[in-house]
Amino acid sequence: MEQANFGVVGLAVMGRNLALNVESRGYTVAVYNRSRTRTDDLVAKHAEKHFVPSYTVEDFVKSIERPRRILLMVKAGAGTDAVIEELLPFLEKDDILIDGGNTFFEDTMRRSEYLAASGINFIGMGVSGGELGALEGPSMMPGGQKEAYDLVEPILHEIAAKAPEDGKPTVTYIGPDGAGHYVKMVHNGIEYGDMQLIAESYDILKRVVGLSQTDLADTFKEWNAGELDSYLIEITADILTRKDDLGSDKPMVDMILDRAGNKGTGKWSSQSALEVGAPQSLITESVYARYISAMKDDRVAASKELNGPDYQFEGDLKATVEDLRQALYFGKIMSYAQGFDQLRMASDHYDWNLPFGELAQLWRAGAIIRARFLQRITDAYDADPALHNLLLNDYFKTIAEKYQGAARRVVALAVEAGIPAPSLSAAVAYYDSYRSAVLPANLIQAQRDYFGAHTYERVDQPAGKMYHYSWYDEA
Amino acid sequence: MEQANFGVVGLAVMGRNLALNVESRGYTVAVYNRSRTRTDDLVAKHAEKHFVPSYTVEDFVKSIERPRRILLMVKAGAGTDAVIEELLPFLEKDDILIDGGNTFFEDTMRRSEYLAASGINFIGMGVSGGELGALEGPSMMPGGQKEAYDLVEPILHEIAAKAPEDGKPTVTYIGPDGAGHYVKMVHNGIEYGDMQLIAESYDILKRVVGLSQTDLADTFKEWNAGELDSYLIEITADILTRKDDLGSDKPMVDMILDRAGNKGTGKWSSQSALEVGAPQSLITESVYARYISAMKDDRVAASKELNGPDYQFEGDLKATVEDLRQALYFGKIMSYAQGFDQLRMASDHYDWNLPFGELAQLWRAGAIIRARFLQRITDAYDADPALHNLLLNDYFKTIAEKYQGAARRVVALAVEAGIPAPSLSAAVAYYDSYRSAVLPANLIQAQRDYFGAHTYERVDQPAGKMYHYSWYDEA
Repeated sequence: MEQANFGVVGLAVMGRNLALNVESRGYTVAVYNRSRTRTDDLVAKHAEKHFVPSYTVEDFVKSIERPRRILLMVKAGAGTDAVIEELLPFLEKDDILIDGGNTFFEDTMRRSEYLAASGINFIGMGVSGGELGALEGPSMMPGGQKEAYDLVEPILHEIAAKAPEDGKPTVTYIGPDGAGHYVKMVHNGIEYGDMQLIAESYDILKRVVGLSQTDLADTFKEWNAGELDSYLIEITADILTRKDDLGSDKPMVDMILDRAGNKGTGKWSSQSALEVGAPQSLITESVYARYISAMKDDRVAASKELNGPDYQFEGDLKATVEDLRQALYFGKIMSYAQGFDQLRMASDHYDWNLPFGELAQLWRAGAIIRARFLQRITDAYDADPALHNLLLNDYFKTIAEKYQGAARRVVALAVEAGIPAPSLSAAVAYYDSYRSAVLPANLIQAQRDYFGAHTYERVDQPAGKMYHYSWYDEA
Repeated sequence: MEQANFGVVGLAVMGRNLALNVESRGYTVAVYNRSRTRTDDLVAKHAEKHFVPSYTVEDFVKSIERPRRILLMVKAGAGTDAVIEELLPFLEKDDILIDGGNTFFEDTMRRSEYLAASGINFIGMGVSGGELGALEGPSMMPGGQKEAYDLVEPILHEIAAKAPEDGKPTVTYIGPDGAGHYVKMVHNGIEYGDMQLIAESYDILKRVVGLSQTDLADTFKEWNAGELDSYLIEITADILTRKDDLGSDKPMVDMILDRAGNKGTGKWSSQSALEVGAPQSLITESVYARYISAMKDDRVAASKELNGPDYQFEGDLKATVEDLRQALYFGKIMSYAQGFDQLRMASDHYDWNLPFGELAQLWRAGAIIRARFLQRITDAYDADPALHNLLLNDYFKTIAEKYQGAARRVVALAVEAGIPAPSLSAAVAYYDSYRSAVLPANLIQAQRDYFGAHTYERVDQPAGKMYHYSWYDEA
């Protein structure tokens, strides 16, 4: 029997499309799925292609050349553990398992350690780009043993998307064990932030400025031609042109219920930011915005109970639309500054030595957050690989300073008009916090020392030297 | 030998003060500490009191009447597990361990299950009030087996603080296993929110309005005489009157470094809010504000790089101070609405059946967040035990509507002046989100369906019925 060069376990849409992508580069691909219909279906539909189907795990493993390279595309969580246990008896030393699911990075760390005990290499790989990306070229974030990555890299390079700027494949070695899934998680968090910023801008344009549906669509289309150029702005413009597919003549977007779902990666991203001490307010506000959106019944009831301001927009329409464009870009810069700060802190926390500049590079194509803007981040880290915060890079500093006025006007407008703008507000608060040499945390330290004797540092003494005030004696 | 009625393990300041408090109510208290000096010290200082010191765990356990009631006041985490393992060989069926540390509620759930296997009851009890509270009357939040709580309740009633409104002890049965530590965790989260709201108000009064140190102190003192009346406002006013204790003639608060510490409970509270789906933005912003405050060196560097608006306050001073008072109260209402919403969702998630109205009751005295305001929450749940959100109670609704104007003006002022107000901003965004019958999450759902085929619900179809749009076919 022909030995396959690569194996794929799990043939739902993502697994199937990745298998097709790998096969299309001239590889023979072993395929296995727990229920055989998906295997049969794939092989029947692509009889001319080089697939080696198996119907037992043992046959599947044996059909692949050593050291084996096996991609798992199964439901993250218990499903991944189950598949690993099934495969393990048949795997041999130096074989490589690649988990391409949306796995929580701590699970990847645990599995990496577990499999290493049997001499099996484990790569936790974030995959972005959805179904189409999987087929035509995703952005991939693999973490694990470097020597295992090196054996997989040629295939990953071939199946990855290529950045329009320089043709580079959107995949690179991220770091040990959970690093790849961690970076994918923060990528998804950033995606939440981008989407929420767009949603707030849309809401203000619609509910405050009063743009028509056509003008809304045109505005996002125009924005996509400039520095906001990105996949998410592009599809927003497209979405806003669509009509209801069930026959009403309303815009499709108005027929969609305002209750946002989530698959947990934004939540994980925020929970981890809290864990490593990274102030990641914009993404977290985006997660909370989805949670509030999910409370539809409560909101409908509350809307009848809680009044808001009487507000009538009398501003300059064109200037306000431009303010919103600048505010959105300003918000995006704050969100990425926070996201990369989280990555920096996590890299220290877990000792991963993440390649920051390359991360932005490999999101330039394939990824949902692909955007012209990402080249600027790559440039920033090229110019200074030790850059501590994106806001300290000249380009981002200049834009932030230039667009802060618009961002401030937009937040004030939303607050005055009674339209929620949690992520835009968080962006401005972050900018002003980060550039405050002195914050009122001195008062918080005084309070903590007062009620809990937690002690404090002094401005005129070395950091780390702790003091306590006799609040009760002198009161 | 005299049998003790109660035992305390761990004689650092909290354990020592709780032991003294229990003894003062006429009980004989067995005491044990890992290093004997603390035990000797306590007994020597209080030779006339009814303490039974032991220097081995076995002697300690045997010195207590059955079923034993033993309070653990040791460092939360591994320390608690270690003490439990030491005690376990000597404990007998129906004995009761009470963990009074700041323990993560999931650890309490785990320990409760573990000890139940040996027939030992376990109470995880949050204790608020600091050192002084422990000695004179803390607020306590015990969770565990109800029958075990009943055996401890008489002592807890005696040592608890008594609410000034009705003399009731600030302790009640919270619910099974981790419920008590969970409620304490959210209490601490709310404390973070209260402190951050105060810090932002202080910062705006100082940096924007330009109040002198004396006027700052007087303002908080005045506020404490009204509906903001609370322990934290009271100590803020006191703090602001204090002079540097190391001899400069500057206000003490100006000598304290603006780098806020934290013990993790605010972080846990936010992480759990994210887990149970509760939009708890204000507390989370307060945690992030502490994280940014900790980045002192970055901020000092950034303050030289990133400019802000040119702003000169020309508003009405008196009106602006009153706006700040109202904004602070508005923010407090949003924070507690979010906190109680989190408790409601956690109660459902863990099946705890939390007594919401009583929680506010038992924070009225002893607790760091004690405040006149809490009686309003008690009243709200008395009026409607099934209240879904504090904002739907008449009192809070009326205040929120009345004070929203001030809150909006303050956020706009801070944003315009370039002073960070993350938690006040989050308060306004939450109010406006919660009262929005329609949020722009419809656009987010469209985007998710576009790039990931995640499907959506329709406004004109039953909830839960999912649809997918053929975005690519018709593009």
